[in-house]
Amino acid sequence: MFIFHICFLLIINLSSSPPMKSAAAIMSGLSLSTTPRGPSYSSHRCLRFFSLSLPSCPSLNRPPIHNHPIFVLRNSSGSSSITAKPSSEMRKNHATGMEQDQKLTALRDLFGKPGINIDAYIIPSQDAHQSEFIAECYMRRAYISGFTGSAGTAIVTRHKAALWTDGRYFLQAEKQLSSSWTLMRAGNWGVPNTTEWLNDVLAPGGRIGIDPFLFSSDAVIELKEAVAKSSHELVYLYDVNLVDEVWKEARPMPPNKPIRVHDHKYAGVDVSTKLSNLRSELIDAGSSAIVISMLDEIAWLLNLRGNDVPHSPVMYAYLIVEIHAAKLFVDNSKVTPEVMDYLKKAGIELRPYESILSEIESLAARGAHLWLDTASVNAAIASTYAIACDKFLESLGSKGKGKDFATRGSNRLSGAPCALCKSSPVSLAKAVKNHAELEGMRNSHLRDAAALAQFWSWLEEALNKNVILTEVEVADKLLEFRSSQAGFVDTSFDTISGSGANGAIIHYRAEPDSCSVVDAHKLFLLDSGAQYLDGTTDVTRTVHFGEPSERQKECFTRVLQGHIALDQAVFPENTPGFVLDAFARSSLWKVGLDYRHGTGHGVGAALNVHEGPQSISFRFGNMTPMLKGMIVSNEPGYYEDHAFGIRIENLLFVKEIDTPNRFGGITYIGFEKLTFVPIQTKLVDLTLLSAAEIDWLNDYHSQVWEKVSSLVDGSAREWLWNNTRPVVKP
Amino acid sequence: MFIFHICFLLIINLSSSPPMKSAAAIMSGLSLSTTPRGPSYSSHRCLRFFSLSLPSCPSLNRPPIHNHPIFVLRNSSGSSSITAKPSSEMRKNHATGMEQDQKLTALRDLFGKPGINIDAYIIPSQDAHQSEFIAECYMRRAYISGFTGSAGTAIVTRHKAALWTDGRYFLQAEKQLSSSWTLMRAGNWGVPNTTEWLNDVLAPGGRIGIDPFLFSSDAVIELKEAVAKSSHELVYLYDVNLVDEVWKEARPMPPNKPIRVHDHKYAGVDVSTKLSNLRSELIDAGSSAIVISMLDEIAWLLNLRGNDVPHSPVMYAYLIVEIHAAKLFVDNSKVTPEVMDYLKKAGIELRPYESILSEIESLAARGAHLWLDTASVNAAIASTYAIACDKFLESLGSKGKGKDFATRGSNRLSGAPCALCKSSPVSLAKAVKNHAELEGMRNSHLRDAAALAQFWSWLEEALNKNVILTEVEVADKLLEFRSSQAGFVDTSFDTISGSGANGAIIHYRAEPDSCSVVDAHKLFLLDSGAQYLDGTTDVTRTVHFGEPSERQKECFTRVLQGHIALDQAVFPENTPGFVLDAFARSSLWKVGLDYRHGTGHGVGAALNVHEGPQSISFRFGNMTPMLKGMIVSNEPGYYEDHAFGIRIENLLFVKEIDTPNRFGGITYIGFEKLTFVPIQTKLVDLTLLSAAEIDWLNDYHSQVWEKVSSLVDGSAREWLWNNTRPVVKP
Repeated sequence: MFIFHICFLLIINLSSSPPMKSAAAIMSGLSLSTTPRGPSYSSHRCLRFFSLSLPSCPSLNRPPIHNHPIFVLRNSSGSSSITAKPSSEMRKNHATGMEQDQKLTALRDLFGKPGINIDAYIIPSQDAHQSEFIAECYMRRAYISGFTGSAGTAIVTRHKAALWTDGRYFLQAEKQLSSSWTLMRAGNWGVPNTTEWLNDVLAPGGRIGIDPFLFSSDAVIELKEAVAKSSHELVYLYDVNLVDEVWKEARPMPPNKPIRVHDHKYAGVDVSTKLSNLRSELIDAGSSAIVISMLDEIAWLLNLRGNDVPHSPVMYAYLIVEIHAAKLFVDNSKVTPEVMDYLKKAGIELRPYESILSEIESLAARGAHLWLDTASVNAAIASTYAIACDKFLESLGSKGKGKDFATRGSNRLSGAPCALCKSSPVSLAKAVKNHAELEGMRNSHLRDAAALAQFWSWLEEALNKNVILTEVEVADKLLEFRSSQAGFVDTSFDTISGSGANGAIIHYRAEPDSCSVVDAHKLFLLDSGAQYLDGTTDVTRTVHFGEPSERQKECFTRVLQGHIALDQAVFPENTPGFVLDAFARSSLWKVGLDYRHGTGHGVGAALNVHEGPQSISFRFGNMTPMLKGMIVSNEPGYYEDHAFGIRIENLLFVKEIDTPNRFGGITYIGFEKLTFVPIQTKLVDLTLLSAAEIDWLNDYHSQVWEKVSSLVDGSAREWLWNNTRPVVKP
Repeated sequence: MFIFHICFLLIINLSSSPPMKSAAAIMSGLSLSTTPRGPSYSSHRCLRFFSLSLPSCPSLNRPPIHNHPIFVLRNSSGSSSITAKPSSEMRKNHATGMEQDQKLTALRDLFGKPGINIDAYIIPSQDAHQSEFIAECYMRRAYISGFTGSAGTAIVTRHKAALWTDGRYFLQAEKQLSSSWTLMRAGNWGVPNTTEWLNDVLAPGGRIGIDPFLFSSDAVIELKEAVAKSSHELVYLYDVNLVDEVWKEARPMPPNKPIRVHDHKYAGVDVSTKLSNLRSELIDAGSSAIVISMLDEIAWLLNLRGNDVPHSPVMYAYLIVEIHAAKLFVDNSKVTPEVMDYLKKAGIELRPYESILSEIESLAARGAHLWLDTASVNAAIASTYAIACDKFLESLGSKGKGKDFATRGSNRLSGAPCALCKSSPVSLAKAVKNHAELEGMRNSHLRDAAALAQFWSWLEEALNKNVILTEVEVADKLLEFRSSQAGFVDTSFDTISGSGANGAIIHYRAEPDSCSVVDAHKLFLLDSGAQYLDGTTDVTRTVHFGEPSERQKECFTRVLQGHIALDQAVFPENTPGFVLDAFARSSLWKVGLDYRHGTGHGVGAALNVHEGPQSISFRFGNMTPMLKGMIVSNEPGYYEDHAFGIRIENLLFVKEIDTPNRFGGITYIGFEKLTFVPIQTKLVDLTLLSAAEIDWLNDYHSQVWEKVSSLVDGSAREWLWNNTRPVVKP
């Protein structure tokens, strides 16, 4: 599953931000920009970041961090905080139009308060860590606007309120927004993006407030530049999130479920080795410390898992690793004695989550050379460091004066702090799986396949008996089968369960009160996955319970041919994923068909279902090479509006291929399958397949039977047998 | 044929220059850089160009252009000037070691002359137009160093002389360079590039002389930056090429063969329409004039053809097009009364070739907004314009002072000149062929195919009779067959004729005194092409006259599969060529094989055999989409060192495909073949081919017979029949 991130990113872009390192952007390099993301780009970003002065930035006068009101609120969360709910739960809390208007009034009342004094406030969807799935207490845009879709940006001025979202949410937003709100249909012709709108509706020289925790450092720079065109000023409100001030006691507590240690047999490498490798990278790069804010990077590096958000086993935290110290900034209430002990042994100190900025200041005061991934680290952290560095230099007197941040970085004044703006090294280290991680992924995929065999067998039988089942009921039943598997933790994303035309809506999300019945006479697309203790799954199958049309069979077969072509690809080491993307489309292209999404995203090992830095996409910006041990999805599709959708998705891991030659003295690499779920042969037009493609299909099904049959019995086993029989070229 | 350009570019890069718009760089986007070449890059180049001040540039004090000694020399050429000789002819003029040393002494004597005063002089391979093939009088690097290979850069200091060339020329350079010269084996480990070497051997603050006509504007900027690291200054010697001063009377006259009008039935669009289209583009871009220096662009735009260099039917000239005027700067002696009349009717004024700089100055004085393709236009032109613009602003008094060139460009001070740095619009217009051009290409390819059928038939028969033939004799015989075809003009490049291991040398050039015999027991690779009045051809076939090994057959078959995959590709409009490159390699990759060159380059219609801007290459920098009407080569290969080389090359044109669907409401495009020459089926391992691939081969051969058989008779027809019979899957 890969999908709604494309549009999520669209919103971000329309919000005049650069490609963010949100889970969305990471997921498969779905950056809309084609700028290569090599080291030179990183340093470019760095220069841009530090060459921007912040002359009138209110943060210069901010009160001490420990008085930060929002942190008091965050810290006051007791053990009674919410469980990570699927976001569907959120949608039930619709506020009335009057309630919405009261919220807007309350928000605007804050605009003129001392120390705030703004003309507009931007409320994005993000949390402070660019997470794909976020805790309910951080769903500020949903709270203030009433619109609960996953992607959107709200902006409130003294007289207007507007919400940007993309095509998949237009209907929902129309229903949920009160008349005080203007829906901005992002992507529609003539609809301004957020900054164009701001530049239009505000009188020149306006003050636009943001919570700098909720924007990546890179995003803020773009935002700043865009609004500067109308001489607006971006005002960083470090100390208060205005929506939280309106939300008050009704705001859910931050999540505080206990953190657990990720078993070494699944992690494969212990925390001290990981930290030691990271420190070597810091030293090689000439830096003395790094701040990590991506939640999956922290979980992976420390071999910890959390339960703060749906679908991703992560906990809200920041991590600072120095050469001789490491500090985890996390709510103490989540830290069990076992974890406390574990962290102590690993030499990791605990700090309150909300003390991150004071530690950042302290790093500057100690002359750190701080590695900052400005695509992921939020603007609060990056700006705090920049200002603290300035203070340091001021304290030196005129010596360093006039030199900008980047220059100082390159000159490395003895003892002076500086920043090194580069992609986080943890991202790539995490993406290349070790033996234990791969083993866990293999094993969890077989149990997942068993659950799916039980599910498909159940569903076919039910439909044969003319049982009426909705798309949601079907997804719930799948969850039930998966829950019975050993080590099951959660779904890895909201299941996409689409019958007929719903399958053509790439971002389809079935809702209990509005979804369709699964129609035995139509194609049914099911994209789902699970989190297990040892691994993460993500699989899509498209099936027909009756007689598919010739059109459906041709489209399905061409998608399958693309799937096979990518699965079987062999290519030189260091090939970026986009080189492979055309293999998956070629068969569709031959008859003028295509699909409007990438072909593959990275997947974490018992971690986020979407991770970077690799991707397989038609967008050419992501130069990350495919490396041995990486995991990617292989998910070509085809979608016929108002008719049907087709997608066939397996997860693959990248491995060395033992080729008979090694031209150039290099390694040639390819893929091995992790997913073992039958592909419905009824949908295959065998006359279109080559002999080699038929061999692939038969070999795959033979492997499915061999690996999964011992894990199922009864009707599921019978179903598996029936659905793994070889086909013969007619 | 595509090949030696990769290394040619390597030399350029090692000479610390950016990717140049040499024929080499153009040819197939073989830029070693991965920087996208979109408009933003162009403007980036522009900013960089104009933000560089030239504080101590000697050009500021240069004498009036009309006193330019080199121009006097150039202008003095009578009608007795040289014919365009193939460059192989040049190689015979080896100077002795003593002669070489005398040249070096004479050159160094000029270093201290008034107005020169330099410490080093760089002598590149280029002419003033970034041409791939150059006239003998411009082969200054060959003259001064004695090294006659096509790629190389010479640098002479007061005490040292060094020549950079790449691997294919190491042996030749060792033989040809006297002991006064140091051979710099570019690409070998530890070998500095030209600017690293200069920065090493010159005392800081050195003055490095160049002839600014021989470097593109972009290249000079890079060069300047590189040598500035050691505080060296680049000295533009506008008025004298020091090598020419040494060469004196022995220097060949500039070519002056008559220019001819390219028949309208081949050109398809008349010059007034082309000029009118160009002027529309100028107006749209906000510019009032353009200077065009690429010789093929001038020839195409004016529907003229020349005979100044081998292989390319172009004439040395510059062209300036303004909204209401056009001026062709060309040696009058080449202009026949017919051409004179033709130009007059088209509203094109004639100017002496050497008056280009004074016209550039005049443009600035008239406040032109000049479109400059700084990747192709030489530094003499660009700098002259920059300086003239400065003078203009100075004359305005303090008004414009302090504003740099680029700022002025964007501000468009009323009446003030400025520059617009963008890729030449003629390049893309020329690449997209019209109906008449395509028709000429089709027809010339059939005649070329007839000559090749005669040739292959002759060669097989001769070898069957055990006639001993060298690689050069075979190439000469092919020229003989081609020369008999209607409209034959020239070869389109030096034929690559390689038997056995020579076929594995990608840049192989058979020499009469050292080449091999064509061995009937080895693979034979022949890459050749011709210029006809109506079109340009380029075709490679690899054959075996005896029994190929299984290894050879497997490799040949995989190359063929790549060739077929690219030939059959269908893809959405606006797809850049690099997306298709992997199709041509996939079959080789599966067994760990690959080839170290691009897969396709653009080809001119009765023009340069290598043209841009499109390419099909594994390098990702060229974002030019494949457009209907473009012509590209399809030439995958495989090269086994010291054993054999394989390449199969057809030319294709890009056309719309009538797909049954048009997903996204767009056009899907693909290719149609221009080349109709049998592919040796003896070399195909039919067990490796799919049924569809066998169908492709049989269908191709059936077309070859159908289209070419009527153009040949006797044994050639018999050969064609025998070599177009269908194969059957075993």
